[in-house]
Amino acid sequence: MLYIVGLGLGDEKDITVKGLEAVKSCERIYLEHYTSILTVPTDRLEALYGKKILLADREMVESDLNAILKDADSINVAFLVVGDPYGATTHTDLVLRAKELNIAVTSIHNASIMNAIGCCGLQLYNYGQTISIVFFLDNWRPDSFYDKIKQNRAIKLHTLCLLDIKVKEQSIENMARGRKIYEPPRYMTVNQAVEQLLEVEEKRQEKGVYSPTTIGVGMSRIGAPDQRIVCGTLQELLEADFGEPLHSLVLAGEMHFLEADILKTFAINVDTFNQYAQVSDH
Amino acid sequence: MLYIVGLGLGDEKDITVKGLEAVKSCERIYLEHYTSILTVPTDRLEALYGKKILLADREMVESDLNAILKDADSINVAFLVVGDPYGATTHTDLVLRAKELNIAVTSIHNASIMNAIGCCGLQLYNYGQTISIVFFLDNWRPDSFYDKIKQNRAIKLHTLCLLDIKVKEQSIENMARGRKIYEPPRYMTVNQAVEQLLEVEEKRQEKGVYSPTTIGVGMSRIGAPDQRIVCGTLQELLEADFGEPLHSLVLAGEMHFLEADILKTFAINVDTFNQYAQVSDH
Repeated sequence: MLYIVGLGLGDEKDITVKGLEAVKSCERIYLEHYTSILTVPTDRLEALYGKKILLADREMVESDLNAILKDADSINVAFLVVGDPYGATTHTDLVLRAKELNIAVTSIHNASIMNAIGCCGLQLYNYGQTISIVFFLDNWRPDSFYDKIKQNRAIKLHTLCLLDIKVKEQSIENMARGRKIYEPPRYMTVNQAVEQLLEVEEKRQEKGVYSPTTIGVGMSRIGAPDQRIVCGTLQELLEADFGEPLHSLVLAGEMHFLEADILKTFAINVDTFNQYAQVSDH
Repeated sequence: MLYIVGLGLGDEKDITVKGLEAVKSCERIYLEHYTSILTVPTDRLEALYGKKILLADREMVESDLNAILKDADSINVAFLVVGDPYGATTHTDLVLRAKELNIAVTSIHNASIMNAIGCCGLQLYNYGQTISIVFFLDNWRPDSFYDKIKQNRAIKLHTLCLLDIKVKEQSIENMARGRKIYEPPRYMTVNQAVEQLLEVEEKRQEKGVYSPTTIGVGMSRIGAPDQRIVCGTLQELLEADFGEPLHSLVLAGEMHFLEADILKTFAINVDTFNQYAQVSDH
C-alpha cells in the first residue's frame, strides 16, 4: 500500500491520528520537501513517528517514481506531503504510476493553504482561480498572473497568490558545468510579492485590475503559534513584517460586510481599510 | 481558551494529533452538526476523546454564542467543526464574539471539501468561485448559481458545487404553529443536484454555460474508505449511484492534459469522456 499523507501546515502534530497510524505501519517514509515546508525541522517528525524519514527532492519525485514505489505492492510505503496530498501536479503523477503498477493507494487528507486561508475572514467560496508569483530574474519577469487577477477581479472575487519557493536550485553556471552545488533555499516574502505585483501594474496599467490602494492580506506560518495575518493596502503591505516563511498573499475582491468585519480586525490602519475596501451589504 | 477544531471529512481519526490534544484538555466540547456531517456517529468521537460531546444546532450557534463561550476565559472549550473551522460564516461570528469578550481563540485546521476535492485530479488552482445548490421547492427554485457557473466557465475554470443539507428543519406548517417538530435530515445527492442543474439550463439556455454533455465529477464520502469518485457527462451522472451522504459535484472547465489523464481513470465511459472533455495541451 502507498499512503499519501497530508501533514497539514504547522508542525509535526498537525498530522491526523489516521495519518500517524498509517505512517507508523510503513517500512519506508518519504517527505516531499520542495513545494512547501513545515515550521519545524524533520527530526521533530521522526521523533513523533519513531521512524527515519527519507527526503524526496524534485529530481527524485519527477524522475524516479519507481524507487519510491518499490515493493509497495507488498509493504507499506508513506509519501508525506506538507498540506494536502493533492496540492501539486507531481503527486497525481505518483498516483497514476502506482495505479499502473497495481499498487493500492490511500490518501489521507489534511489542511492546505488553499483552505486554511479561510482564517483571514474572506470566505473560501468567494475566491477565484489561484495564481503563483515566481521570483523575477533580470531577464525573466513572467506576468501571466496579471491576466488571471484581472479575470478574478472583473467578477469581484478574491485571489490567493502562492509565493515562490526555491529549494535545491542550481545557479546557471553550476548547472552549465554539471556541478551538483545548490543555492541556499529562498522563500518569497509578502513584501517581495507585492513589489513584483506593483512593478507589473506599473507596466501594464489595465483598468480595474489592482493598484497600490487595493486591499490585500499578507499571511505567514498559518497554523503555527506565531502565525501572522496582516491586512492593508498593497502600499502598506510593502513595509509590513511577516517574519519567517512560508508567506502567502490574498488580494481582496468585493467583500460581504461580514467578511469585512473580520478582515478589519487584522488591518494595519482601519482608516485606510475603510477608505479602500470594496464592501457590499448583500 | 476557545479551540475551534476542524475534524476533517471522514471518521473520528481524521482529527489531527494537535486537535485531539486540545479536545482532551477541554471541559466543554461542542460539535457543530448542521452544515456538514462525518461518516460515523458521534459516539465514536466520544470514545476517542474520552469526553461527552454537546451537539450545537443552527439555532444555538446563530442565537446563543454566549452559552458556547461561557467561562472560556478561564477554562478550555472546544468547538468542533466537520472539515476546516472556516468553511461557514457562522464560525467567523463565533471568533468575532470571542474577540469581543477577550477570549483567546486557537484554530486547528484540517481538510475540508474545498481542498480535498483535489483527489479527483482537477487542480485546485483551476477552480473558480464555489456555488451552492439548495433543494428546490414547488414555489422556490433559486438559480443564481447559474450566473456564477457562467462566469467560471467563461474563463475555463472548474466549479465546485456544494449540495444542500437539511438538518433539524421544521415543516412550514409546524413552524407556523410553533411546534418544535423536526423533519428527518435530508442530504442532496449528486443525482438531485444534476437534475436541478439541467432544469435550470432547460429554462435559461444561455450560450456556453453547461449542457447535458458537460463533463462533471460526482464525489461522495471523500476521506472515507468507501469514498466514490465518478466522472461522466451530466446526463450520465443523473443515473450513477453514489451511496450514502455527503455528496459533492464538480463541473469541469477546460482541463490540462494531466488533469484529464487522472480524471479519465474515474470515467463511467471513456469514449464519452474523450468526446466531450475540453482538454488543452499547454
